[in-house]
Amino acid sequence: MNINEKFKLLGVENAPGQEGCINSSNLDIRGLKIPGIPVDFSHGDVDAFPPIPGSLDLFVHGFQKGSKQAYTKYRGSSESLSYLSEKLTAFFHIKICEENIIITPGTQGALFLSVGSLISPGDKIAIVSPDYFANQKLAEFFDAEIIPVHMEYLTDCQKSGINLEELKMAFEKGAKVFLFSNPNNPTGAVYSFQEISEIAAIAKQYDVTIIVDELYSRQIFKEKIYTHLCAMKNCPENVITIIGPSKTESLSGFRLGVAVGPRSIINRMEKLQAIVSLRAPGYSQAVLKCWFSEPRGFMENRIKQHQFIRDNIVDLFKSVPGVSIRSTDGGSYVFPTIPDLDVDILTFVKIVKYLADVTVTPGTEFGRQYVHSIRLNFSQNPDAAIAAVKRIIEVLERYRSKK
Amino acid sequence: MNINEKFKLLGVENAPGQEGCINSSNLDIRGLKIPGIPVDFSHGDVDAFPPIPGSLDLFVHGFQKGSKQAYTKYRGSSESLSYLSEKLTAFFHIKICEENIIITPGTQGALFLSVGSLISPGDKIAIVSPDYFANQKLAEFFDAEIIPVHMEYLTDCQKSGINLEELKMAFEKGAKVFLFSNPNNPTGAVYSFQEISEIAAIAKQYDVTIIVDELYSRQIFKEKIYTHLCAMKNCPENVITIIGPSKTESLSGFRLGVAVGPRSIINRMEKLQAIVSLRAPGYSQAVLKCWFSEPRGFMENRIKQHQFIRDNIVDLFKSVPGVSIRSTDGGSYVFPTIPDLDVDILTFVKIVKYLADVTVTPGTEFGRQYVHSIRLNFSQNPDAAIAAVKRIIEVLERYRSKK
Repeated sequence: MNINEKFKLLGVENAPGQEGCINSSNLDIRGLKIPGIPVDFSHGDVDAFPPIPGSLDLFVHGFQKGSKQAYTKYRGSSESLSYLSEKLTAFFHIKICEENIIITPGTQGALFLSVGSLISPGDKIAIVSPDYFANQKLAEFFDAEIIPVHMEYLTDCQKSGINLEELKMAFEKGAKVFLFSNPNNPTGAVYSFQEISEIAAIAKQYDVTIIVDELYSRQIFKEKIYTHLCAMKNCPENVITIIGPSKTESLSGFRLGVAVGPRSIINRMEKLQAIVSLRAPGYSQAVLKCWFSEPRGFMENRIKQHQFIRDNIVDLFKSVPGVSIRSTDGGSYVFPTIPDLDVDILTFVKIVKYLADVTVTPGTEFGRQYVHSIRLNFSQNPDAAIAAVKRIIEVLERYRSKK
Repeated sequence: MNINEKFKLLGVENAPGQEGCINSSNLDIRGLKIPGIPVDFSHGDVDAFPPIPGSLDLFVHGFQKGSKQAYTKYRGSSESLSYLSEKLTAFFHIKICEENIIITPGTQGALFLSVGSLISPGDKIAIVSPDYFANQKLAEFFDAEIIPVHMEYLTDCQKSGINLEELKMAFEKGAKVFLFSNPNNPTGAVYSFQEISEIAAIAKQYDVTIIVDELYSRQIFKEKIYTHLCAMKNCPENVITIIGPSKTESLSGFRLGVAVGPRSIINRMEKLQAIVSLRAPGYSQAVLKCWFSEPRGFMENRIKQHQFIRDNIVDLFKSVPGVSIRSTDGGSYVFPTIPDLDVDILTFVKIVKYLADVTVTPGTEFGRQYVHSIRLNFSQNPDAAIAAVKRIIEVLERYRSKK
């Protein structure tokens, strides 16, 4: 594949956050616009769920520290690494040393650096389908061969539904790296203890490196059990765990992420970071001090509020004939399957934006076969989100196929 | 080259900013420590030259704008792009539209994205020697074949001394991209109008894409004329110009950079940014509003102050037998050549740190042949910098070879 073809695949027009670029001319518009507060479900709304209290003060304090905070080691300031080593040890329930951590510009930065540190052209990488839209693009950028591993997320809510036979076959075929998100983005599925245990066992057997994106692992809903792969007794040697304060904690605007893993891989990631962006923003790194030190009740409240929105919009979607939806186990996403329409999914997304002033992400961003799915990030103002889902359903009915 | 070999080449131990990692045991220490205020010449000191007044207020204002500022388009917020298009048009003296700009996490981010958008494995890239340490590492990471183009920077201060015959030969041999910094890092040399004009002409003739890193182009010293390649009448079609507010303006802690170029390449860079780090830090982007809008006299003063430090440390180095140095035309670097020592350059750098508490960057970071050079970023407290150079010279004399 030459560089022109590569960048043709690497489209961003329909990626979350890029919806401002959508051109709405030449659409088959049916009926009048449906009024309501605009909602952008492509990402969380940090106005509805503001950043951790005190985060801005920490930034100002970092700025005032001057040169020392502006120019940290590439992997991050010693102070932040030391703080994170304590907090992540408590969170994962395994010992995390400073040398096992790198601070990156967002978790996207951590994903890029980990894939870039492990994959050479032609290497095979196993990727879950559906999963975070960038996983596939990263693999393509590094000229890796993708082996998809399917997840039957609509069948059984006690597990993610990952096809472990397929995973094993991918390893058998020579996959060097397995990359997945838990909770899964876009479906909100959480992997069961049994699944994580089997993933660990197979990866160990085949000596595969695992990258697990646990960005949403602090937002697990009632009665769901979350399992950190890195804390499993049978955990393979090479596991990179990615986490960050951009989601539930709403610190996205500071661009902070973290990767945790074996020293050898973290060292490589630091070398790569040196030529990619030097370091995570220096002053922002000072903000990490409020992460895992939120005011009492902050996280519990946030989870409760998100659970309320989830329950309402899942019920709304469930009431629509032909719609299938899994109720989110963790994180802020739902990924409903919608019935046949008279327009394709990309056009439907544009029409929803035009008629209802609601932004959703087309399923095709998460795997080319998801032509009947849309993803919503429901970290929004609750009333506005519920009203917006009603408008989506109204638009859906206008375009439902009569065939 | 497999990925292990690749990352062995991608060392960061001696890179600027990483000196905290140096191990000083087993050194041949001669004489007592020389007391003085510690100086870190590996990067500028934003305590000595603080950020543009009002930059923190703009950040706070950005934070208060909330979601809109946290989640910008990948290429940057419309507001910032519009502002930059006006300011960069005035600065470069050619029309720069919003669609020709991308905001990146530091100029390092802009360099990475531009090389990553243009180079495939096996492509040939022409790189000046000496030049910014990351240029070569970027080329190696993307498996490009490097064709070095030498610069005789010590001969004639009216020009950079780039060997234009070699450049032409590199293009003749099939180089697809030419990457260089102007003012040159590490030497501080500014390319003459004649040189830039010839570079433009040859690149046009061979249809080569140019990436020019103009990070220091706002800090040009008295009587020196600076030429923006992108504003030349004979400028080739594909020129990427990189600039940012991290140096003279001391905004490095916010992690902001900018690339300007043809729409086709900027679009690619945005696609790549989507998987590398999503976007430059959202709140930080609001800070761009003080760049090119500094208080009256701010830039003039800064240049004058840096010129004062430059004059003093260049005179000090010139007074040492066996030292050659070019006086900086633009930017904050000097790159003196030092005489034969009893220790190699990497050891010397460690000894200077140990005996004099002064950090300098070994010349080998800028090309493996620069075993007699050190780089200093003299954007420091003037008195401390001058005293620190005296200590470097004292250490140098203790290790001067008697052979």
